[in-house]
Amino acid sequence: MGKQTKIKAVFFDIDDTLFDSTTLAKMARMNAVKAMIESGLPLANVTQGYNLLMKIVNKYGSNYDKHFDKLLEILGCEWDPKIIAAGVVAYHDTKQAYLKPDPEVVPTLIALRDKGYKLGIISNGKSVKQWEKIIRLGLHHFFDIVVISEEVGSEKPDTKIFEVALKKLNVEPYEAVYVGDNLETDILGANKAGMISIRILKGKHKEGKPAGKMMKPRYSIKKLSDLLSILKKLDR
Amino acid sequence: MGKQTKIKAVFFDIDDTLFDSTTLAKMARMNAVKAMIESGLPLANVTQGYNLLMKIVNKYGSNYDKHFDKLLEILGCEWDPKIIAAGVVAYHDTKQAYLKPDPEVVPTLIALRDKGYKLGIISNGKSVKQWEKIIRLGLHHFFDIVVISEEVGSEKPDTKIFEVALKKLNVEPYEAVYVGDNLETDILGANKAGMISIRILKGKHKEGKPAGKMMKPRYSIKKLSDLLSILKKLDR
Repeated sequence: MGKQTKIKAVFFDIDDTLFDSTTLAKMARMNAVKAMIESGLPLANVTQGYNLLMKIVNKYGSNYDKHFDKLLEILGCEWDPKIIAAGVVAYHDTKQAYLKPDPEVVPTLIALRDKGYKLGIISNGKSVKQWEKIIRLGLHHFFDIVVISEEVGSEKPDTKIFEVALKKLNVEPYEAVYVGDNLETDILGANKAGMISIRILKGKHKEGKPAGKMMKPRYSIKKLSDLLSILKKLDR
Repeated sequence: MGKQTKIKAVFFDIDDTLFDSTTLAKMARMNAVKAMIESGLPLANVTQGYNLLMKIVNKYGSNYDKHFDKLLEILGCEWDPKIIAAGVVAYHDTKQAYLKPDPEVVPTLIALRDKGYKLGIISNGKSVKQWEKIIRLGLHHFFDIVVISEEVGSEKPDTKIFEVALKKLNVEPYEAVYVGDNLETDILGANKAGMISIRILKGKHKEGKPAGKMMKPRYSIKKLSDLLSILKKLDR
């Protein structure tokens, strides 16, 4: 009756998988714009400012560090450190308030460790920035390995970043599960690498449809704790 | 008896004048080193790490953003984003906890405004960074003007930065008081600009002795609220 494969490792994406990064980013940017308006940014309302800011974020990328400077520029304002600082303070305070793991995350990670699974993170981004999130989420003691694209020189959906992680834990792809929210990076990448892909329906990618067979997740879950029953099934 | 000069404006330094930046910097760095050791930095104790870190801060300046990377380098460690992120998180959390105005600051500023004085800040540093401090201290609504060296292109003790501030408030130097902790920047600069210099005995410069006549403060105070009696005397 089919070959018996024991799952040895469970890998996770960070953003919109372990915490609600879509809400965090939205609220942080809204509050930043609000604080900037209160400090003199000439805008009629927060929504108008938020939409302009999102155009800047999409154009320059989310790791660019002059979003607020650009917002002033677009509005034809002189550079004003008071307005920029008001935005920075509000952004960071909001970020910290929302940088909490989703409620089922810690119990699920504990249950997985109790059952003997190795746990890892495979994430795209800047290493220090991603580690800051893991530490602020209070999750840094749960993972056996953390692999971030900046250090590997390979980004999801490339298979290399998944292979580096598998090798570090000495696990074959078919012995590993990967959980993420993004079809184009997480699911496509895990499938290409030969891992068991699990899509978590969260955040801004929740409504997306797979563009092709390789983007189809093996399983879909609504919350992280649903993982436990899937693993039970896979190990039967 | 003597000419009657009404004081119109009171200017302030920020660090170690409005808040205890010496303690903040020390505790933030100590806690950063502690967190880095807990994350694997090979050091026998926090003091050893703190002393190494201070050598790096003194060599590269306090606005350099790779202090922790350099600390790993000096210790012969590979670059480790987990250790660096642990330091960054502890540093920022400690900084926020200590970024509070000294207890007498807000009542003193309110009393000064009630008496009709114009209030200003004259500070060396990066504009957004200094504004972030002012906002986090909750003092941004008290000041009529804030002049920071990055925008003026002149640093204390140069007279230009003082002159820019005086001009903005349309005040003559002899109608203005400047309060700061540092003899070499605050007091020398205010004296050269012809303002009434007041030294506040706080922070790491507390024990310093004036090197020459131009570094001698007109008055010395122990806490900001002592300003009120000096101004009373000056206006008599």
